Amino acid sequence: MNAADWFARSLALLKPAARPAPAAPDAPRPLAERLRATLRREPEALTPSALRRLLAQLQGVADPHVSEVEAGRRARQVMAWYAGAGAAERRDLWLLLVDRFAPDAEEVRAARAHYDAALGTPEQGAAEIRLRSAFVSPRTRVLQRFAVDRGGLRFLVDLRAELLPQLKGERWLLPLDAELQALFSTWFDVPFLELRRISWDSPASLIEKLIQYEAVHDIRSWADVKNRLDSDRRCYGFFHPGLPDEPLIFVEVALIDHLAAGIAPLLDEQAAVDDIAKATTAIFYSISNTQAGLRGVSFGDSLIKRVVETLREEFPQLRQFATLSPIPGFRGWLAKNADAMRARLPERLRAELDRALGGESVPAAAERALALDEKSPVRQFLLRSAAQYLGRELDDGRPLDPVARFHLGNGARVERLNWAGDPSPKGLKQSCGLMVNYLYDLRRLDKHRAMTLAGRIPLSSEVERLLL
Amino acid sequence: MNAADWFARSLALLKPAARPAPAAPDAPRPLAERLRATLRREPEALTPSALRRLLAQLQGVADPHVSEVEAGRRARQVMAWYAGAGAAERRDLWLLLVDRFAPDAEEVRAARAHYDAALGTPEQGAAEIRLRSAFVSPRTRVLQRFAVDRGGLRFLVDLRAELLPQLKGERWLLPLDAELQALFSTWFDVPFLELRRISWDSPASLIEKLIQYEAVHDIRSWADVKNRLDSDRRCYGFFHPGLPDEPLIFVEVALIDHLAAGIAPLLDEQAAVDDIAKATTAIFYSISNTQAGLRGVSFGDSLIKRVVETLREEFPQLRQFATLSPIPGFRGWLAKNADAMRARLPERLRAELDRALGGESVPAAAERALALDEKSPVRQFLLRSAAQYLGRELDDGRPLDPVARFHLGNGARVERLNWAGDPSPKGLKQSCGLMVNYLYDLRRLDKHRAMTLAGRIPLSSEVERLLL
Amino acid sequence: MNAADWFARSLALLKPAARPAPAAPDAPRPLAERLRATLRREPEALTPSALRRLLAQLQGVADPHVSEVEAGRRARQVMAWYAGAGAAERRDLWLLLVDRFAPDAEEVRAARAHYDAALGTPEQGAAEIRLRSAFVSPRTRVLQRFAVDRGGLRFLVDLRAELLPQLKGERWLLPLDAELQALFSTWFDVPFLELRRISWDSPASLIEKLIQYEAVHDIRSWADVKNRLDSDRRCYGFFHPGLPDEPLIFVEVALIDHLAAGIAPLLDEQAAVDDIAKATTAIFYSISNTQAGLRGVSFGDSLIKRVVETLREEFPQLRQFATLSPIPGFRGWLAKNADAMRARLPERLRAELDRALGGESVPAAAERALALDEKSPVRQFLLRSAAQYLGRELDDGRPLDPVARFHLGNGARVERLNWAGDPSPKGLKQSCGLMVNYLYDLRRLDKHRAMTLAGRIPLSSEVERLLL
Amino acid sequence: MNAADWFARSLALLKPAARPAPAAPDAPRPLAERLRATLRREPEALTPSALRRLLAQLQGVADPHVSEVEAGRRARQVMAWYAGAGAAERRDLWLLLVDRFAPDAEEVRAARAHYDAALGTPEQGAAEIRLRSAFVSPRTRVLQRFAVDRGGLRFLVDLRAELLPQLKGERWLLPLDAELQALFSTWFDVPFLELRRISWDSPASLIEKLIQYEAVHDIRSWADVKNRLDSDRRCYGFFHPGLPDEPLIFVEVALIDHLAAGIAPLLDEQAAVDDIAKATTAIFYSISNTQAGLRGVSFGDSLIKRVVETLREEFPQLRQFATLSPIPGFRGWLAKNADAMRARLPERLRAELDRALGGESVPAAAERALALDEKSPVRQFLLRSAAQYLGRELDDGRPLDPVARFHLGNGARVERLNWAGDPSPKGLKQSCGLMVNYLYDLRRLDKHRAMTLAGRIPLSSEVERLLL
Repeated sequence: MNAADWFARSLALLKPAARPAPAAPDAPRPLAERLRATLRREPEALTPSALRRLLAQLQGVADPHVSEVEAGRRARQVMAWYAGAGAAERRDLWLLLVDRFAPDAEEVRAARAHYDAALGTPEQGAAEIRLRSAFVSPRTRVLQRFAVDRGGLRFLVDLRAELLPQLKGERWLLPLDAELQALFSTWFDVPFLELRRISWDSPASLIEKLIQYEAVHDIRSWADVKNRLDSDRRCYGFFHPGLPDEPLIFVEVALIDHLAAGIAPLLDEQAAVDDIAKATTAIFYSISNTQAGLRGVSFGDSLIKRVVETLREEFPQLRQFATLSPIPGFRGWLAKNADAMRARLPERLRAELDRALGGESVPAAAERALALDEKSPVRQFLLRSAAQYLGRELDDGRPLDPVARFHLGNGARVERLNWAGDPSPKGLKQSCGLMVNYLYDLRRLDKHRAMTLAGRIPLSSEVERLLL
Repeated sequence: MNAADWFARSLALLKPAARPAPAAPDAPRPLAERLRATLRREPEALTPSALRRLLAQLQGVADPHVSEVEAGRRARQVMAWYAGAGAAERRDLWLLLVDRFAPDAEEVRAARAHYDAALGTPEQGAAEIRLRSAFVSPRTRVLQRFAVDRGGLRFLVDLRAELLPQLKGERWLLPLDAELQALFSTWFDVPFLELRRISWDSPASLIEKLIQYEAVHDIRSWADVKNRLDSDRRCYGFFHPGLPDEPLIFVEVALIDHLAAGIAPLLDEQAAVDDIAKATTAIFYSISNTQAGLRGVSFGDSLIKRVVETLREEFPQLRQFATLSPIPGFRGWLAKNADAMRARLPERLRAELDRALGGESVPAAAERALALDEKSPVRQFLLRSAAQYLGRELDDGRPLDPVARFHLGNGARVERLNWAGDPSPKGLKQSCGLMVNYLYDLRRLDKHRAMTLAGRIPLSSEVERLLL
Repeated sequence: MNAADWFARSLALLKPAARPAPAAPDAPRPLAERLRATLRREPEALTPSALRRLLAQLQGVADPHVSEVEAGRRARQVMAWYAGAGAAERRDLWLLLVDRFAPDAEEVRAARAHYDAALGTPEQGAAEIRLRSAFVSPRTRVLQRFAVDRGGLRFLVDLRAELLPQLKGERWLLPLDAELQALFSTWFDVPFLELRRISWDSPASLIEKLIQYEAVHDIRSWADVKNRLDSDRRCYGFFHPGLPDEPLIFVEVALIDHLAAGIAPLLDEQAAVDDIAKATTAIFYSISNTQAGLRGVSFGDSLIKRVVETLREEFPQLRQFATLSPIPGFRGWLAKNADAMRARLPERLRAELDRALGGESVPAAAERALALDEKSPVRQFLLRSAAQYLGRELDDGRPLDPVARFHLGNGARVERLNWAGDPSPKGLKQSCGLMVNYLYDLRRLDKHRAMTLAGRIPLSSEVERLLL
Repeated sequence: MNAADWFARSLALLKPAARPAPAAPDAPRPLAERLRATLRREPEALTPSALRRLLAQLQGVADPHVSEVEAGRRARQVMAWYAGAGAAERRDLWLLLVDRFAPDAEEVRAARAHYDAALGTPEQGAAEIRLRSAFVSPRTRVLQRFAVDRGGLRFLVDLRAELLPQLKGERWLLPLDAELQALFSTWFDVPFLELRRISWDSPASLIEKLIQYEAVHDIRSWADVKNRLDSDRRCYGFFHPGLPDEPLIFVEVALIDHLAAGIAPLLDEQAAVDDIAKATTAIFYSISNTQAGLRGVSFGDSLIKRVVETLREEFPQLRQFATLSPIPGFRGWLAKNADAMRARLPERLRAELDRALGGESVPAAAERALALDEKSPVRQFLLRSAAQYLGRELDDGRPLDPVARFHLGNGARVERLNWAGDPSPKGLKQSCGLMVNYLYDLRRLDKHRAMTLAGRIPLSSEVERLLL
């Protein structure tokens, strides 16, 4: 008997779920069939009896007759088991959550019938309520009860982080993922988030997390992070009461007197501290999400807006809020589109470019980007291409570049391209060393957002001029 | 033209809602019809143009293309308007929320079709997700965005408190109420509540709220509340980060060395402070919900369990956790059931009772309850009736008395009846001066809860013996 | 044998002090003699053996070879004993502290000889140090070690509060009092005080202390104190880390748009809250010291200055800082000086006054002060007398009135007299209902203080004009 | 004119001090003479006019007629000047403080006469007070007023840290130093210190200070300090409200199940975390004072005692409190005393030692200490010598080794010598790699302290046996 078989049998041996699974009772339990067929059962998975035991435990958590506190206690036991479980055992838990705690099909059917009959009558409101609550699965209750305990939120967020990379291959996990995302969306709703400044006076354990989570410009040392928390900098994060020591997202800001053109001066630990009293410009130079498990729950827009408010209160003299951002997708896009871009050039420029390339391909020449002087036709070509990439290229109506998508979606506009803004190997590899400023013009956020939604990327006239 | 007419007209004038209302487009907009027919429009209601303006504002809040922060700003404007609005104007807002922000009927229909087709196929999970999100109404988004702002939660809780008393007469408000309750259930989920001790060192502004909210034994003065916060007492409340200075529910506990038999010694401001080191028993003598708008979101069970945990940590010597509770429905019940109870008495006791009553009715005799000596047949009769009332009388399978329903539902049992436990006029009027102890036996909470759910009220042998 | 005798004997029985008392050993112990002669020993005092035991305990505390922590433990025992001791027993402790823990006379003598020899040589500095440390009595060490323990500061402050009323009759307590005051002066030095705002959100236990300590205008109820902590009021106190829940001194401030002329509107619980945004004037209408034991350790000046700084930061629009103060000594002074004041009047005014009095004496007429109309010569006379009392009458070069002494010493000036400013019986009795504003003109505090020190009271021209 | 001359002249030009200097007026101002003679005036010192200006400023601070707040403001100006002043200019300030703000000689003389006359009379107490207050110099007031401002304490502690290294050569600074130490002793009295745990959750800025201040075993990196703050470690410091972010002293503790024999395992960043539930022993392995300016103000004893109390509360199962300490003076002492130690050996052991040394000197052989096996006569000799050094060698009646002096003075005893306890180059150089455990036997602290004070060092029997 192979693993798939004994699992199928073990499923058959399971006591009936507290509520029947959604499939019609006369049908041959198609989900289980499918699972039987597709799950490659590994020897490390649970034995049938352990599976039955785990199911019973989960049913104990779901039991509507049990108090929140008792259910929380039971959930704690499952969490303790999970902490010590292997990958295959954990999958078994996911499977049970998907398969055995779906909404009650009978009740869904009855509620639908009621709703259909009530449409347009005074009963419609009540019927709507009934139908919606029929869709609240026992699975929801199980997950909510995991959250009763202090560590429960941590557990659920980590569980989803584990589950997300599997989603693509195993679509049967989707309902569990959707349920988690729905719960997270209310639990981590912006009003429940606390904006906290992170400074050199913050707990070392928290600053250590910045080092670990920073996703844009790696933090190399404690001296590096100390520089980023200097008196001319600000760092803010969103925190949630259920994950009290964890910044869910954080942003690093430099307060200076000009629109920053390159990242190196900002990361230079030896640079003198700027005179904050003269700052006119807040540069958001790094923004990092920290919890993979919270994918799809967005905080970034709110974070930036709240930070802008906070900064304006502390520094009324600030006139300009902008980012200094990487263009992570540019070089990959260019590799595929260099020829098309070249083709758009007016005759004269194309000739200049070809002469400058001397037979080399654009991607190959881009390797030497940092060495190109200001007049270089290759440099001009790269800048024009970047303007095209950021200003015109859409994917399903939205900006192609992921960072552009984020900031333009928040209502920013593309303000300036910065040659050699990031001369690091990573910068060269991603974007030929280019960086971009997105400007948050507070009076035009909604206008710019609407333009972006309509597929017209808002650009400064300077960037506009680079377009072909 | 009467008020109902002009309102009907004003509805007709409204710009079409961002998403159409759920009624079928070919049907003659039945909800609006109903509203037209039933709403008694008062002259204080909004003019058509003001109604249109308000609708536009709400649509601005609901607009999915607007950032959370901007939507929060718009919600703030509506809240400011609402604060100054009259009762009829406020009803107009409710009406708009119910009528104009329902789920998109088209999308619901499509999602249902998809779900039906997917049942039992690998797509079932995704279809379930789609159907559920089709039911997320724009109304939900509006309400969530009201909550973005710090004062937003306060606003929504108060709005529901205003709306609840109207529900009975105006069932068209049900969907709005249900939406609010559903949101509150996740927002005020137990893991987001903070248990805080309230003591004489707590803010005066908070203690003032105890005075205001206390629902069981009125607090008469600051000296009274100080007594309840003495060193031999404990008071705990649940707090939520969105309503930071508001105890959502609170419980008052006395730490003594016996099962309290009467409320008077506990409320006696002159009584000496008990030696807390000798306390063996925690008496929960008052528990009050404070937010009418949170009806149906239950915290009481969790509060008691968490308080028990906290007390056991601080006072490992505690052996007994019990309430001293009123029996608010007893006398009302007795007035209707005295004859039936009398009829159950064995011949001899019935004769004794009749002699003692000397022709007076039981309800009339109950007026003199406090004066009855221990041997009095009337007193015995009242005790037996109370045992019957608490131990046998069910309503739809649940305990008839509301306080009993709460504690027995939490897993407590009926432990002891206390003659003259509450000799106040209110106590006499509600329960002939009787009080009851519910015992929280920590090892039997689930057993007792299950018994109660099964319709068998758990009683101590002492109370059992009182039954006829 | 009478009490004095047995005490004398008991002193003789005492083991020699760790360090000999300051008197020469061959002299017949004059201090002890004096004590023997003057102390009326009461039967409640300690027995000789108990006295010996207490001395041994105190010597244990003083022992320089014992660690701070051990000494603190021993001090705790003495404090526990003291808490249960009667008045006579407590006096015995004071006596021992005075008599048995004085500086070491031998060492003082030697240090003085050294100092005399070193004067004007390079050794002078070292000799000065030695002489000063010779004066550090074992008593200082005992008292410092009482303070090691958390409750120790409380103990010492209360001890001095007990001792102060005895000082006048029993000058032998002076060294103990001086030692305590010297220690308190460093311990309660302004830099160690924390300015804290007290509001309706402060602990009830703290607000209860305001009710108890308020010394100027009695707080009658919780409603009264709530009014004084309203949003248009401020209350600040100084706190010390060693007495963490105790305001050492506190001041009540009203923020209004004029110079307050009477106390009644400020204490009116029903009065509408003022619009704080329009406030131009901060009125300090009550300032109370709370710790009798800290007499001579002054905080008032610093408190007012710190509060002014704090208010200016929060309310930059404030233009005027002033008090509304009682004149507690006026009527007592007037009773003695009415004739002399009358004699100063110009002929015409004196005649008018006499006519208005119609034979009644001024003190008798003052009883009716509140009823006097604006033109009344008696009212004019009382105002002129008050101007004289505040503006000219000195005692040993300092203002005669204690409240005036405080504010003028801080650099304020006499700004305005307010007829019927305090119409309460106490106000009438103290000052014929008059109140006064002292103005803190921030640019002239040092100038005004210098004038006061030079015996010239700074007055506004309005008050100046009232002088005869 | 050389520098000394113009300074002498500048002194002569100074306005007379507020109060005359202590020297007799008829004497030729000997202190000034001495200063003139000994101070090598450098060109960087103040010009006469600047000196006069500074003196005037200090007199402004000292002015008893000025309010605390105003004096604090003036002190702030002097502090700002000092921050920018050079070394020679700073010395000028010290000079002024020493020379111009001494006690008033006239008043001292009068108070002494009064005291002499009052000795043994009822006036003695008052006379004692007067004499003591005569010794309170204007300098004291100046220094106290520097402390009024938040940064003032920092300023004074740093000033003394600057001054201390000069004391030896320039004894004229002694009075200023003594005054500062006296003030610090009351300001930094133990009851005003707060014991705070420092953990990995403490501010990074605070942990950075541990790295900087650690005086026993250098902290090499953030990973190193994180290891020392692990869950099986504790770190506590004393903090003062006037220097809120500064640990005045801190101690590092390991919680393990045995008496630690070597420092390496404790500093091993890779070592597994110990199971704190099994810990029986608290090892104090590093204790560092951080403020040079607080020399002579001792906290160490209290810190250890308070930490012991705190640990016993958190971990009732702890049985043993001990240090693992360096023996910093051992090898230096041995270099001088090896021959004498050898001479004490019994004939047989001496022969063995000589054989093992093979002509090499003991100090030379000690270089190879770590390589010596357990039986080596050289190793035995070194251990015996260390026992002698710690257990018998006194300096002026107190332990010779500074670390021993500290712990034995606190009541600890010498418990065990650990061969190769510190194999680092520093350990080898200071103590041939030896470390020692001092045991804090809580029931014998006072007994052991008394023994040490009497010159008999308390030793365990194991160490006792090593003595010759």
